[in-house]
Amino acid sequence: MGKVIQSKDTKFSEGDIVLSRICPVSEFGVMPSNLLQKITPAIGIALPDYLSCLGMPGITAWVGIEKIGNAKAGSNVYISAAAGGVGIIAGQLAKVKGCRVVGSVGSDDKVKLLKEECGYDDAFNYRVETDYDAALTKYFPNGIDVYFDNVGGKMLEAVLNHVNHGARIALCGMISEYNKVWTEREGVRNLLNMVGKEVMMKGFMVGSYYNHFEEFIKEMEVYLKEGKIKSKHKIYNGIESFLESLASLFSSSNVGKVILQVTP
Amino acid sequence: MGKVIQSKDTKFSEGDIVLSRICPVSEFGVMPSNLLQKITPAIGIALPDYLSCLGMPGITAWVGIEKIGNAKAGSNVYISAAAGGVGIIAGQLAKVKGCRVVGSVGSDDKVKLLKEECGYDDAFNYRVETDYDAALTKYFPNGIDVYFDNVGGKMLEAVLNHVNHGARIALCGMISEYNKVWTEREGVRNLLNMVGKEVMMKGFMVGSYYNHFEEFIKEMEVYLKEGKIKSKHKIYNGIESFLESLASLFSSSNVGKVILQVTP
Repeated sequence: MGKVIQSKDTKFSEGDIVLSRICPVSEFGVMPSNLLQKITPAIGIALPDYLSCLGMPGITAWVGIEKIGNAKAGSNVYISAAAGGVGIIAGQLAKVKGCRVVGSVGSDDKVKLLKEECGYDDAFNYRVETDYDAALTKYFPNGIDVYFDNVGGKMLEAVLNHVNHGARIALCGMISEYNKVWTEREGVRNLLNMVGKEVMMKGFMVGSYYNHFEEFIKEMEVYLKEGKIKSKHKIYNGIESFLESLASLFSSSNVGKVILQVTP
Repeated sequence: MGKVIQSKDTKFSEGDIVLSRICPVSEFGVMPSNLLQKITPAIGIALPDYLSCLGMPGITAWVGIEKIGNAKAGSNVYISAAAGGVGIIAGQLAKVKGCRVVGSVGSDDKVKLLKEECGYDDAFNYRVETDYDAALTKYFPNGIDVYFDNVGGKMLEAVLNHVNHGARIALCGMISEYNKVWTEREGVRNLLNMVGKEVMMKGFMVGSYYNHFEEFIKEMEVYLKEGKIKSKHKIYNGIESFLESLASLFSSSNVGKVILQVTP
């Protein structure tokens, strides 16, 4: 996100606030105007919200829950990496839709946060409840209708033992599998369950859904204004904090979106 | 399939030809009329066709290729167990749509049949070309857009290394996995490929699609009449052949649909 100082494109004027998916890490820069999106901050919505709920993490959550997951009132929704920048919004969005939502996270503090501040119906720490199959039996007595998958591997396999007929699985990322050669990755052995249960699984990259951005932002702004969804983010100040902010993504110590504010 | 001798339901008259998904193996029987579907054989279409192309195998193939696979002119379509009752129709249907179609089968005779009689662009024997990854590199230089999966396991894993962006995988069955406890099944290790390539995978049971039966049969009858799709089946005569016909399904010696004709 940045502020326009000067532009040769008449669509932009000095002072406009713009977003871009490929902003460099810099205090000043020259950008092609076709890669910029002008935003008009609505009253009652803070600028950082446009980088979390109303930005990339927000639309990613929205695509997984609405466009792929087709979550409806009463759906049993499971979200892994549920306190991450995307997961934390996905769960709140599913709650707005009237779903029952349970998330898994890597610390007890995050469990508490999801339940007390984000409206999750329940949450568990996968480092404590390491038998995923038993955990899902406990947290989903009525099975899973929608799974927002951020981790893949063993967790995805466990989910496939608990899916309801016609379940939808949105594959957003597979953090458990990134740093492995593919032949060393966890094999998912129960895809056969997808046949009898008629399960749909779809991988997605949010970039393919930016044609829905207007539709998304119109909907999400309402939820934010009504206080139904809250942004969570941590702001690092000054461009000199860049490396620290980047490293924090891998220590899993942050909750929500990590933002680097280069100028006040 | 049977012929009505007598019915208390006014929708049926003596001599009507009816289909049912749950016909018992018998020469005569009493059936609830709501489980029967009356068919009016079109000119130029033989009765056994209503059990193959125009019956359950036909609509199964149609659902996988059209409803889930969304195969279009130019799509690269791969079909495993391609000489089976369903696969053999799926491939011909994809050809009608203008796709490039390759199938895998378990014998050289079947390879020949697919290429010479069923219009497949190519076919290979998976018992000979046992390195599936190498085989798919060879037969799909432009990648796979639609995979009609009848086998699962290692073949599904190999396919996921050759999918194009936005590929669709219709999970119809997983013959390689049926006779195993799930924890002993082949794990598919590269589901992560589904994320970057935005692949959609959907399991299905044909019973859920019978509301499309009219639409399907209207389309398929035209193809049959125009000779664009040919039924393949083997008829066993007499109810005493039942066990023999059943056993033939598991020896993989048959091509196309196995039919037991209880009365001439």
